[in-house]
Amino acid sequence: MKETKKNPAPQARHFVRFVDKYSPRIDLSIENYFSGKKKAAEHPFMAEIWSDLAEYCLRPGKRVRPLVLIAAFRGYGGENSAMRAIIAMAASLELMHSFLLIQDDIIDRSHVRRGGAAFHLLMQGRFSGGTINEGVGSDVALVAADVLFCDALRLVLGAGIGAEAKTGFLRLFADTYERTAWGQILDIVNTMPRSLHAGDTAAHEVGMMKTAYYTVYYPLLMGCTLAGAATAGERRAIGRFALPLGHAFQVRDDILGVFGDRAEMGKSADSDILEGKKTVLVQNTIERLGPVEGKRFESLFTKAAKSASDLDEIRGMIRDSGALDKAVDMHRRLVDEAVRASSSLLIADAEREVLLGLCASIGALK
Amino acid sequence: MKETKKNPAPQARHFVRFVDKYSPRIDLSIENYFSGKKKAAEHPFMAEIWSDLAEYCLRPGKRVRPLVLIAAFRGYGGENSAMRAIIAMAASLELMHSFLLIQDDIIDRSHVRRGGAAFHLLMQGRFSGGTINEGVGSDVALVAADVLFCDALRLVLGAGIGAEAKTGFLRLFADTYERTAWGQILDIVNTMPRSLHAGDTAAHEVGMMKTAYYTVYYPLLMGCTLAGAATAGERRAIGRFALPLGHAFQVRDDILGVFGDRAEMGKSADSDILEGKKTVLVQNTIERLGPVEGKRFESLFTKAAKSASDLDEIRGMIRDSGALDKAVDMHRRLVDEAVRASSSLLIADAEREVLLGLCASIGALK
Repeated sequence: MKETKKNPAPQARHFVRFVDKYSPRIDLSIENYFSGKKKAAEHPFMAEIWSDLAEYCLRPGKRVRPLVLIAAFRGYGGENSAMRAIIAMAASLELMHSFLLIQDDIIDRSHVRRGGAAFHLLMQGRFSGGTINEGVGSDVALVAADVLFCDALRLVLGAGIGAEAKTGFLRLFADTYERTAWGQILDIVNTMPRSLHAGDTAAHEVGMMKTAYYTVYYPLLMGCTLAGAATAGERRAIGRFALPLGHAFQVRDDILGVFGDRAEMGKSADSDILEGKKTVLVQNTIERLGPVEGKRFESLFTKAAKSASDLDEIRGMIRDSGALDKAVDMHRRLVDEAVRASSSLLIADAEREVLLGLCASIGALK
Repeated sequence: MKETKKNPAPQARHFVRFVDKYSPRIDLSIENYFSGKKKAAEHPFMAEIWSDLAEYCLRPGKRVRPLVLIAAFRGYGGENSAMRAIIAMAASLELMHSFLLIQDDIIDRSHVRRGGAAFHLLMQGRFSGGTINEGVGSDVALVAADVLFCDALRLVLGAGIGAEAKTGFLRLFADTYERTAWGQILDIVNTMPRSLHAGDTAAHEVGMMKTAYYTVYYPLLMGCTLAGAATAGERRAIGRFALPLGHAFQVRDDILGVFGDRAEMGKSADSDILEGKKTVLVQNTIERLGPVEGKRFESLFTKAAKSASDLDEIRGMIRDSGALDKAVDMHRRLVDEAVRASSSLLIADAEREVLLGLCASIGALK
C-alpha cells in the first residue's frame, strides 16, 4: 500500500504530546472509579466482573474521543478550575466506547479486542462452569455493558460542575449514542449481504453515522459546549471540520481492516472480509468491475464460509480493480478537507495544533 | 392453587382507578415522543424501527413503575404544576422497562412478549431478507434497545423541571439500572444450572436485586425525591415497605411462571421450567426432597431438552414436595409485611390507598 505523506509526521507529534499528557489522567479517573466500585461490591461475582471491566476499559488505546473533548474544552476557553470535572466527563465517553465495543464483539462474534480477549469470552471463562447455557458469556457481557452505561452516567453526574452543564452535556450524550446506534444498525443489516449493487450508499452512510459523528463531531461539540462557546456558527464550523475527518477515520479503518497488519489493528486483517463487512473498499470494487468479474466478486464475497484462497482472490480484486487506490485517494481528500476547515474553527492555536496532529495521525495509512 | 384472600378485591380498586387515570397519560407521553421521532427519521429503516419500538413499548401492561413514581410524587406533596414533567420522567421508566424486556428476550431466546412477538423476532422479520446473518434480528434488537435508553434520557432531560431535579433523578436512574443489571447477571449465571444445592440463596438474591429494588423501591424513592421529601428516615421507611412488596412481586411471578395460565402471563407457563430458571419454587423443592428424590428432580431439571412428561413430573414434584405451598405462604407473608409497613410511610392517605391497592393487586395469586 502506498503511504500518504501529505501530513508530515512532525505535526502528529502535537497530538501525541497531548495524548501523553492527558490520557493517563483519563485512565486514572476510570481506575479510581472502578476501584471504588470493586471495594463496595456486595457480592463476589460483582467484584470479579468489576475487575474484568476495569482491565477491559483500561487496555491500551488512544482515548481519541475523551482527548478531543478535552482539547475542545481548553481551546474554546473553558476554565482551568473545571478540568477535573471535564476529565471525569471525558472518561464517561471512554466507558461508553467500551460499552459499544462489548456489544460490537457480541454481534460480530469476534474473539479479540485491543489485543486481549473479547469481553464475552472473559465472561464465558468466568461463568461457563455453572451452567449448560452455551451463550452464557454473551448473555452476561450484554448486561455487563449496561452496568458500564450506568457508570458513564454516574461519572457525569458526579463531576464537580453545575447541574445545567451536566444536563446540557447529557443531551449531546443521548444524541451521540442514538446516532451511533443507528449507524451500527445500518452496519448490521448491511453485513453478510446476500448481494452487492453498484450505487449502494450504505457504506458511506454507515461511516458517517457510526464513526464520523461519534468519533470527532460530538466530542468536539461537547467540549465546545462545556466551554460555553457553542454558537450556531461554531457548530457549523465544527461540522465542516469534524465530519470529513471522522469519515476519513472510518475509511482508514476500512483500508487497514483488509490491508493492515495484525499488530496495528489488534486483530487479523482477514476479519472484515470474513465477517462480510460491506465497506467502502467492497463498494468501490463492485462499482469498478464489469458484469462478469462483478458477479465473480459478489459470489466470493457473499459466501458464508470463505477459504484462504477466497480471501486472497477477494483482496486481489479489491486491489487490481483500483478500489483500494480510490479509497486511499478518498481518505487523503477527506483529511485535506478537514485540515483546510480547521482554520475556520474559533479555537486557540495550541489546541488547533492538537487537532491538526489528530488529522496527521488519522492521515497516516500505516 | 389456593387463592390469597387476605387482601380483599375492593382494595385493589384504588390501584385500578389510579391506573385508569394515569396510564393513558403515560402512554400519550410515549406516543407523542415516538411520533415526533418517526416524523424526523432521516432514513426509511429508522422510521420502520421507530414504528416497531412504539408498538412494542405501548403494548398493554400495567405501567407499574411509572405509576408508583407518580403516586409517590403526589402523595409526598409534589406540586401539581410539575405533573406534566413528572409524567415524562415516569414514562422514561417505561422505555427503560422495554429496554430490559428486549434484552431479556434475546437472552432467554423467548418468542412472545406481552402477547406479541419478541422484539428480536420483529427485527428478524424486517431485515432477514437482505443478509445471510441468521442472528440479524437479535443483533439489531440489541442495538435498538440502546436507542431506547437514549430516548429515556431524552425524556428526562426534556422535562419542564429544573436541572438539579433532573440530575438528582438521573442519579437514582443510574442506581436503578445498575442494580437491576447485577440481578439480571446473577439470574443468567444461575439459569440452566448444571446442578442444584440445598442452601443456595441465589433465587432469593435475584428476586431482591432484579425485581424488588427495580419495581417498587426505586420508583417510590424517585417520586419521593422529586417531591423533595426523601429524608434519610423516609428512605428507610420506603425500604421497609417496598422491598418485601417487590420481593412478593417476584415470588408471584415465579409461581405464575409455572402454575399460571397462558392468558394471564402473555406467555406459556412452561417457559420458566424449559428455560431452566432456578426460581424460589425450584429452590424450595430441592430443600424439601430427600436425597433420592432430590437427585431425580435435579436430573430432570438440569436436562437440556425437557419432554412434556418431564415438565409434568417437575411440576408434580414442586407441588407434592410442598414447595408450591411454601412459596404461596412466603408470598402472603411478604405482602402482609408490606401492608403493615405502609402505615409508617409519611405519604398522603389517598396515595397510601393506591399503594395498598398495589399490595392487593400483587397479593392476588391468579
